[in-house]
Amino acid sequence: MALRSEQDFLTLIDRYFPPSGSPAGRQADLVRPEHVLLGRGDDCAVLRCPGQICMSADLFLEDVHFRRSYFLPEDVGYKALAVNVSDISAMGSRPLGFCLQLFGPSDVPQDWWEGLFAGMAGLADSLHLPLVGGDLSRGPNIGLALTVWGEAVEDGRFLSRQTARPGDHLFLVGEVGLARVGLMALENAGRQACRDLPRATSAHLRPVLHVEQAMHLGKLDFVRGLMDVSDGLAMDLPRFLPSGLGADLDPQAVDIDPEVVDYATRLSEDPLLFALAGGEDYALLGVAAPEASGELTRAVPDARVIGRVVERPGLFLAGRPAQIAGFDHFTG
Amino acid sequence: MALRSEQDFLTLIDRYFPPSGSPAGRQADLVRPEHVLLGRGDDCAVLRCPGQICMSADLFLEDVHFRRSYFLPEDVGYKALAVNVSDISAMGSRPLGFCLQLFGPSDVPQDWWEGLFAGMAGLADSLHLPLVGGDLSRGPNIGLALTVWGEAVEDGRFLSRQTARPGDHLFLVGEVGLARVGLMALENAGRQACRDLPRATSAHLRPVLHVEQAMHLGKLDFVRGLMDVSDGLAMDLPRFLPSGLGADLDPQAVDIDPEVVDYATRLSEDPLLFALAGGEDYALLGVAAPEASGELTRAVPDARVIGRVVERPGLFLAGRPAQIAGFDHFTG
Repeated sequence: MALRSEQDFLTLIDRYFPPSGSPAGRQADLVRPEHVLLGRGDDCAVLRCPGQICMSADLFLEDVHFRRSYFLPEDVGYKALAVNVSDISAMGSRPLGFCLQLFGPSDVPQDWWEGLFAGMAGLADSLHLPLVGGDLSRGPNIGLALTVWGEAVEDGRFLSRQTARPGDHLFLVGEVGLARVGLMALENAGRQACRDLPRATSAHLRPVLHVEQAMHLGKLDFVRGLMDVSDGLAMDLPRFLPSGLGADLDPQAVDIDPEVVDYATRLSEDPLLFALAGGEDYALLGVAAPEASGELTRAVPDARVIGRVVERPGLFLAGRPAQIAGFDHFTG
Repeated sequence: MALRSEQDFLTLIDRYFPPSGSPAGRQADLVRPEHVLLGRGDDCAVLRCPGQICMSADLFLEDVHFRRSYFLPEDVGYKALAVNVSDISAMGSRPLGFCLQLFGPSDVPQDWWEGLFAGMAGLADSLHLPLVGGDLSRGPNIGLALTVWGEAVEDGRFLSRQTARPGDHLFLVGEVGLARVGLMALENAGRQACRDLPRATSAHLRPVLHVEQAMHLGKLDFVRGLMDVSDGLAMDLPRFLPSGLGADLDPQAVDIDPEVVDYATRLSEDPLLFALAGGEDYALLGVAAPEASGELTRAVPDARVIGRVVERPGLFLAGRPAQIAGFDHFTG
């Protein structure tokens, strides 16, 4: 049964995201009570804020960012929130709350919407993240527009881009290349790709977040900068480094999942170059003072140093230039 | 010429919304420098915040909220931002900044996008409102998802709904009914309706905001509550009043534009009932302590008392029940 009215939708949303302040609400003990002063249902939400917040807003649109043919509705709800939270983690920050603007055609069955809300609420609950407001509308296909905000873990300390210095160590938290394999396999074979390539398809459908690691990195003063790798490491590195600087990666240091190795090899492509072209990895890419590498990996064991910042612009592998095409949601 | 890449779009957006901090930026002297600490171009924006903010997020979608056949692109850009800012005014608050998520098909010409940004930037500049971030994507038709936030004019004072008491005076800032006439005429006759019904069509295409009046109302302690009338006064009144209470309106006190009177009369409808059914009025509806009516209209001359809160649920006209259908973007 499709949902007929805005009120049907609001009732369903309240079931999965109980209004803040509601004593019986599933989120009631999770939400830090001081943040949401007035929740959904008025013209605005009212939030109690720390002195500084970071904020990001990402679209998640059918047939651009996901397909209903191989995304479960739970995956759509999960991933739409995850890719937004990843931007908060990319600042080394703690997520605080989010807004959801949602639209779709009238023939989408209620079960599908329930799956979407269940997938999103599962992630939101695990992060203690309240849904504070948003909007609903009919539309020609399904789309989600989320806005997420967060706070610095240490006062005023947000890890930005363009902060690297020559000689700094580059590090990664998370995998690169796996989500690209997942996307290609799902586009080719649909949902049955999940059996053959469980890790790659999961990396595309339900990217792993690094929320705790990011908050840890936000406290380390030798970590100079951070971003999330959403368009592939090769395309994102030049956005991360100040102009004039480049990256020299150690080919042995970049972990490549066996599913990526197999898939790239079957395509007669070099697995490392394939992984660096990536796309939708949602790994964290960081830069740290070189003398602190040992301390970094002790403090955040998932962080792996993959190379260093050099004074030549470009991407190098053990000193030799690498040319790899990236990934662009806009033209892609 | 259509825009080919995300970078083309970002360049165009930077032209209309110069990045905060840029000394040559058109907005540079308008944006209060303390709010935006890190603008567009990183994973998140970083904002310096007052202790409390209010926030709202509204969709503005082609063929749901606007049609390209009779909206100029400048109107689309203006109205998408205006309807969002109206929610900040509905709290009696001062708008501080906004995010824009934008999508559309690849065959929309660059001129059209420039018109949209020009219309939006014109309003944003007049309100000193920085565009701090967002997202871009291809999509099957044009859509905008905005998130806007604001601050209380007096510390912690946000005017919410559900605050009226029996005997309170109801007041309006702005027109009701005019935008509904504009929508109907534009749907019937397209852009040429603008000649016959200039005020009604303008009310639909470029709703007048009441930002200054709202900030004034936010300071008046006898103003108990406020909302913006977006779905018609008849549908929004029950959302505004605490359950168990109703509204008794004075039919003489509700200003009805002659364009509404003419249009309703030609449809053999009662002009007042037609105006109360409204839709997309973006007037402000408020409630004030009855003893302060004189003070209210001296402080905010645009505020007109239109009736009072009564202890019977429902909508009454000079004591007699009125039944009027409202307006729902979701099913409409």
